[in-house]
Amino acid sequence: STSFDLNEHPHTRLNILTGEWVLVSPHRTKRPWQGKVESLPADNRPQHDPVCYLCAGNERADGSKNPDYTTNFAFTNDYSALLPDTPVGEISIDGLLKAESQSGVCRVIAFSPRHDLTLAELEISAIKGIIALWAQEFKTLSENPAIKHIQIFENKGDIMGCSNPHPHGQIWAQNSIPLEIHKETVNQKKYFQVNGRSLLTDYLKVELKEKKRIVFENDNFVVLVPFWAVWPYETMIISKRQVRSVLEFTEEEQLDLAAALKNLTVRYDNLFQVSFPYSAGMHQMPVNDGDHAEWHWHMHFYPPLLRSATIKKFMVGYEMLGNAQRDITPEAAAETLRNQPEIHYKNKNI
Amino acid sequence: STSFDLNEHPHTRLNILTGEWVLVSPHRTKRPWQGKVESLPADNRPQHDPVCYLCAGNERADGSKNPDYTTNFAFTNDYSALLPDTPVGEISIDGLLKAESQSGVCRVIAFSPRHDLTLAELEISAIKGIIALWAQEFKTLSENPAIKHIQIFENKGDIMGCSNPHPHGQIWAQNSIPLEIHKETVNQKKYFQVNGRSLLTDYLKVELKEKKRIVFENDNFVVLVPFWAVWPYETMIISKRQVRSVLEFTEEEQLDLAAALKNLTVRYDNLFQVSFPYSAGMHQMPVNDGDHAEWHWHMHFYPPLLRSATIKKFMVGYEMLGNAQRDITPEAAAETLRNQPEIHYKNKNI
Ligand SMILES: O=P(O)(O)O[C@H]1O[C@H](CO)[C@@H](O)[C@H](O)[C@H]1O
Ligand SMILES: O=P(O)(O)O[C@H]1O[C@H](CO)[C@@H](O)[C@H](O)[C@H]1O
Repeated sequence: STSFDLNEHPHTRLNILTGEWVLVSPHRTKRPWQGKVESLPADNRPQHDPVCYLCAGNERADGSKNPDYTTNFAFTNDYSALLPDTPVGEISIDGLLKAESQSGVCRVIAFSPRHDLTLAELEISAIKGIIALWAQEFKTLSENPAIKHIQIFENKGDIMGCSNPHPHGQIWAQNSIPLEIHKETVNQKKYFQVNGRSLLTDYLKVELKEKKRIVFENDNFVVLVPFWAVWPYETMIISKRQVRSVLEFTEEEQLDLAAALKNLTVRYDNLFQVSFPYSAGMHQMPVNDGDHAEWHWHMHFYPPLLRSATIKKFMVGYEMLGNAQRDITPEAAAETLRNQPEIHYKNKNI
Repeated sequence: STSFDLNEHPHTRLNILTGEWVLVSPHRTKRPWQGKVESLPADNRPQHDPVCYLCAGNERADGSKNPDYTTNFAFTNDYSALLPDTPVGEISIDGLLKAESQSGVCRVIAFSPRHDLTLAELEISAIKGIIALWAQEFKTLSENPAIKHIQIFENKGDIMGCSNPHPHGQIWAQNSIPLEIHKETVNQKKYFQVNGRSLLTDYLKVELKEKKRIVFENDNFVVLVPFWAVWPYETMIISKRQVRSVLEFTEEEQLDLAAALKNLTVRYDNLFQVSFPYSAGMHQMPVNDGDHAEWHWHMHFYPPLLRSATIKKFMVGYEMLGNAQRDITPEAAAETLRNQPEIHYKNKNI
């Protein structure tokens, strides 16, 4: 065709949250793949592993013993990247070498005592329990006035640098605002000041009208492939009501978020019939930093797989040095995810 | 110690080229690694591989035949992410879904007819030949007034998404300015306007005085671990003279750059006694876009390995959602690289 067509021609798309553009090359999956093929991680974990430091009753690196927990369990990371007692200080040499000390807390959350069950395989009520724990952690961490931002996330799969297969998430809370949150704050604030509504409220309206990128929807949440997605099957969960953090969700919203999380992760596992690797995490308002009326809670899923359970997208050369780039359109990815069954392929029936 | 110490305490450092901060957690390598261990790629390639589409005389995907080249060889990528004939167009739905068409050219550069020799193993004169070819390509591509930026880079190693082990680089030239170049342009311009010297001229002065992060130096180039390095053994090559692109190098500078490239890549291979994977590429002025008196040519190396030939740094969860983060200090990395022998561990003596 000779007129510009998003399904056919290379183009760039704007990420309205970060203000950055992504390069989309729709025709590019046609190239044959002769590169690295990932090995499949083992998928025969026991329900309880006596040497896992996350399983109930086991010993951890610091010598302490996990309680015999039956739902979920949070504790401070034995190898935290951020520490609470960092001396305050800064360095500036001619404004060219600049550093500032950083303090914070790193937490680990075991999602369930079951060593073998991921979010996709847990019951919705158990996922709701994890959401309630996230809210509780957010509340407790934000009570320290030095903490300015709380990053709740999960690395899933060894391909995503996850070093323990027991399903778990992490929280990094710190005394400054990380780059990605800074960018999203700037763009949401700009939009809110002009329009008096949150950026994602209006974005959701357009997406629910277009329907092309919607994967799942319930009363309180929408799961979609964002128009500007970078990773092949990247998605976002957005709350229909503008809340600024996980703390503001009602019981009913917690339940609907649990259902959305379950639905999305089941579709992901079904896509390549493998426990689908990803990094996922919430973006929410900074804390102890004023009102932030512009912030609209959402959750990003960044999964690396591109063509199969063993062929991933490499964000390398051009992407590292120049610009994010993707090979299939977000619309095609959304359609593929929409067409997945809502029952887990292992059909464990729990 | 109780006063703030860069070698000991978590802190953030400013990248003066992008304006972005990186989180440094010096204590964090102490954690044991139970996660993914990469497999070592095969390292017994023949000098000529009859099925390699980059070797001399072989057939390519489009049916054409490579010449019997004896030095290096450039051609247009048979699976280009950018195409020259994209119809011009743009889309904006309520300013929330925004896209623009993108056109360009993708080139591939075989570094040598030898299927088995990387930059680290080529003679300096052969590397100088590659630099001359880069300059030639830069010149030719910039003669098209629609091209605004030319990204010259190399993905090395299957862990970096390189799909053919025959040593080669790529060039992506396009009609807009990629994100990373945009950021570096903004910050270099700001500095140049105030100081009348390039940002990297003054940065080099500080680094050459401090010496802590210098890896190698000759008359015309410095190899260093930048103060704000993200990847464990990330380095930069910076030209001592402020030139804006590879096209401006004298013969003598081409030779010194070849020597710097050889020296750095030999150190890299020696570090873990493996053909060291990385993405590397030049950053230089946009083209057909005015004077850009602020731009100072440099080359980034982003290598993923952290602890050994099989344990890499994962830029995942916190890094994707929050902020870049590293586990060893740039000073420690520079010292390790400085201590490597300047003779390749295979000692092929070429
Ligand atoms: O062009 P290649 O070598 O097929 O592909 C490789 O380099 C490209 C440019 O950095 C990336 O977009 C791809 O993800 C990577 O696999
Ligand atoms: O904290 P873990 O699970 O040991 O480590 C993992 O997650 C961290 C936070 O995203 C990353 O910095 C590490 O590179 C990754 O391996």
